[in-house]
Amino acid sequence: MRKLLIALAVLAAPVSAQDKPAVPSPSEIVAAAPKGDWTAIAASDLLVMELAPPDQSPGQASAKGRPRRVVIQLMPPPFSQGWIGNIRKLAAAQWWDGLSVNRVQDNYVVQWGDAAGEDKAKAKALPESLAVVPEGEYTTAHGITLQRAAALRLRQFPLDPYAPNAALLDGWPIGYDTKSQWPVHCYGMVGVGRDMPPDTGSGAELYLVIGHAPRHLDRNIALVGRVIEGIEHLSSLPRGTGALGFYETAEERMQILSLRLGSEVPGLPAFEVLWTNTISFARYANARANRRDPFFIRPAGGADICNIPVPVRRVK
Amino acid sequence: MRKLLIALAVLAAPVSAQDKPAVPSPSEIVAAAPKGDWTAIAASDLLVMELAPPDQSPGQASAKGRPRRVVIQLMPPPFSQGWIGNIRKLAAAQWWDGLSVNRVQDNYVVQWGDAAGEDKAKAKALPESLAVVPEGEYTTAHGITLQRAAALRLRQFPLDPYAPNAALLDGWPIGYDTKSQWPVHCYGMVGVGRDMPPDTGSGAELYLVIGHAPRHLDRNIALVGRVIEGIEHLSSLPRGTGALGFYETAEERMQILSLRLGSEVPGLPAFEVLWTNTISFARYANARANRRDPFFIRPAGGADICNIPVPVRRVK
Repeated sequence: MRKLLIALAVLAAPVSAQDKPAVPSPSEIVAAAPKGDWTAIAASDLLVMELAPPDQSPGQASAKGRPRRVVIQLMPPPFSQGWIGNIRKLAAAQWWDGLSVNRVQDNYVVQWGDAAGEDKAKAKALPESLAVVPEGEYTTAHGITLQRAAALRLRQFPLDPYAPNAALLDGWPIGYDTKSQWPVHCYGMVGVGRDMPPDTGSGAELYLVIGHAPRHLDRNIALVGRVIEGIEHLSSLPRGTGALGFYETAEERMQILSLRLGSEVPGLPAFEVLWTNTISFARYANARANRRDPFFIRPAGGADICNIPVPVRRVK
Repeated sequence: MRKLLIALAVLAAPVSAQDKPAVPSPSEIVAAAPKGDWTAIAASDLLVMELAPPDQSPGQASAKGRPRRVVIQLMPPPFSQGWIGNIRKLAAAQWWDGLSVNRVQDNYVVQWGDAAGEDKAKAKALPESLAVVPEGEYTTAHGITLQRAAALRLRQFPLDPYAPNAALLDGWPIGYDTKSQWPVHCYGMVGVGRDMPPDTGSGAELYLVIGHAPRHLDRNIALVGRVIEGIEHLSSLPRGTGALGFYETAEERMQILSLRLGSEVPGLPAFEVLWTNTISFARYANARANRRDPFFIRPAGGADICNIPVPVRRVK
């Protein structure tokens, strides 16, 4: 008992900033996560986009000679599978090859597809048999039961202004209520451009979120995945000067050399995700919401769902 | 009575998407705001940064020939005035001229100042008489009384995970509790780089938020303003490949030609802000949180404080 009291006294002793025991940062927790807390991402669930080579300008010297490859992970069932089926067909048909990035709107989105899309006469023909997906598919009735939610302590973000409940579940940020669940618009998420409702888009026009989470788009547009590597090749593109950030001339558009399913790309590295239902992830999320590593003087005591990005890494 | 019933029947009649009465979008509400709802920003509260001319690469054709000017609005009292006083002295001393943008970390910050800052022997000397600002100044005890909060219905963002209360007040996004208030880290906000605590930074190293709001930095670092024009010249810079997004070579750094107080820049256009305590702003904020313009099928019914950017415009 005496020993225990001494131990407690040591723990409770005031410490100066210099003496503070080092509390691991979120990235240190991720780096220390055991192999078993990571889950492999199948190559067939990846899209690989190769952009035109970097220009040779002085301002872009850092990119010189390195490939401009963007890797996107597609969402698993039950989310957005109608659009994702179309995207698999479009990639198999090499439909995006030779098309371009046509829109970059600051603090919002980068969008790519057919620049002639608005002009039916000049637009590139879509593969046959693409599904027309109904608006009802923006959410899914499959998934989380209230029992499961309780069991997994899913109400991780009780102060979410956009959804009754929000959680990082099975590797993805989602909102949910008692009847349905849906993916949410965080930085790095990829969605399907569309015209006015009831159009829902085919999947041929895709956009990437490159700004503060535009959560007002949740349940209004389909999300199909997220960029897991190379986002800087898209997020650092010059902003378009036309309405909504569209480029005004053909010269401004970054060309897409190819866009393929990962399973068709020779030599693609393997990737894995820190699984959200692990102790390591819980520690990481807690550390993000309560920063106590040495740089911080006041932990926030909370976080929003888009400020806890799900860690993804290359397998060495 | 019969007339009233008929009118109600008409209002209640189902309408197709085509027939839907047009509900104004947030930007349409801003465009229609009367002159009196806008407040002038004094030129002496602006910083004007001129960056090196755009390179002539094909990928940056849209920027060709146009100036790379970034305009920053400094925060008014009672916020961060110790650092802002230093920044005014640094600008008057033309201290940043010839220095550079040294760090661009994706989904986080752009940072500028003295690239040799870590090396005391090579670092550029700071003007004398810069204040050393204590950590207590990250928040301010001045400001909102509970009575005023109630009167202005300030609890606009009851679901904020980072602050007991959050509001768009007097033109700025702030968090507050019963004792103090503080600016919050939204996209476009500008803050003061610092070393480990208790250092608070002088104001010579500045950073700009270019990603999802890093609200965990609130009350841990000083915020001093926001970019009101030209943010794309910083947010689209190539990301640095060193630790924390620092550039690894001198060639990658974008040079700062000059950084001046707005009152010292001849011919600077006048800017004004849509004042937050107006009916127009309330309508705009409500429309952002409940999108009913034709593109949307499901209003979110809420928003976070960083997803309602305060509108600023050039005076024509």
